Amino acid sequence: MPERFLGDLQQTLDREIPLCRLMGMRVHALNEAGLTLSMPLEGNHNHQRTAFAGSLNALCTITGWGRLYCLVRQHGVGSDSVVVRRSSIRYVKPVESPLVLATCLPVGAKEQAYFLEMLQEKGMAKLDLEVRIPGEDGPAVVFSGSYVAAP
Amino acid sequence: MPERFLGDLQQTLDREIPLCRLMGMRVHALNEAGLTLSMPLEGNHNHQRTAFAGSLNALCTITGWGRLYCLVRQHGVGSDSVVVRRSSIRYVKPVESPLVLATCLPVGAKEQAYFLEMLQEKGMAKLDLEVRIPGEDGPAVVFSGSYVAAP
Repeated sequence: MPERFLGDLQQTLDREIPLCRLMGMRVHALNEAGLTLSMPLEGNHNHQRTAFAGSLNALCTITGWGRLYCLVRQHGVGSDSVVVRRSSIRYVKPVESPLVLATCLPVGAKEQAYFLEMLQEKGMAKLDLEVRIPGEDGPAVVFSGSYVAAP
Repeated sequence: MPERFLGDLQQTLDREIPLCRLMGMRVHALNEAGLTLSMPLEGNHNHQRTAFAGSLNALCTITGWGRLYCLVRQHGVGSDSVVVRRSSIRYVKPVESPLVLATCLPVGAKEQAYFLEMLQEKGMAKLDLEVRIPGEDGPAVVFSGSYVAAP
């Protein structure tokens, strides 16, 4: 995955989605563990001084969206029409770390090939992605999102 | 439902959850249709200039949370420990109205009685709530949240 897609993603978030900038969302890393985005706890806390559920969900939603943003660009397809259609989230434990990290788990080779095939053949394709925010022992947040690309 | 709970809810959002203030969330109304909160589209838009999924989810999450906040206060129970445990959301259609309204559907009398009974007897209770954001013909967003109160 070329590094420039990550830079493009950060610029898109900063420029196009004001809340991402206000939340301090940063494209953190892309490696064998998946795509990771971050936000500071400061400014994203709730009445209990742990991370606000709305911020956690927005971070997870964008992390999955960012994964698909990179994937379609990598394959020369426009990314303007990547949208989330539905999602579910479990807030397993409060998130208290000063830097909150969300990682979109890697897409399986078979799912990715099928997604790209559908996109090229039908002009529209769906991909289910899982995003996690780690806790001390096991995930603190588990998110599943269903995304659609239609360039 | 006393009006002052709505004022308290607005103050709590403004004071305790910075993102709610940044998003411009307002406690809009409580009537037979349910509890309604709002946010402006401006500042909560995405790269397509429709409402950002993260903002829509945060608004729905807080609308359900606000309904429970009012309910426990109305019955003389502290509201500090109302949290969302899980939720699911469907983004049916893009939201383009300048003022985005989310309504938490009324809680059935039986569910409410059971919730309050559990809360008093066990010191903890769960309530499932549904929140909708209307579209031109039918809901544009459908949200289900499972909330827990443990004063």
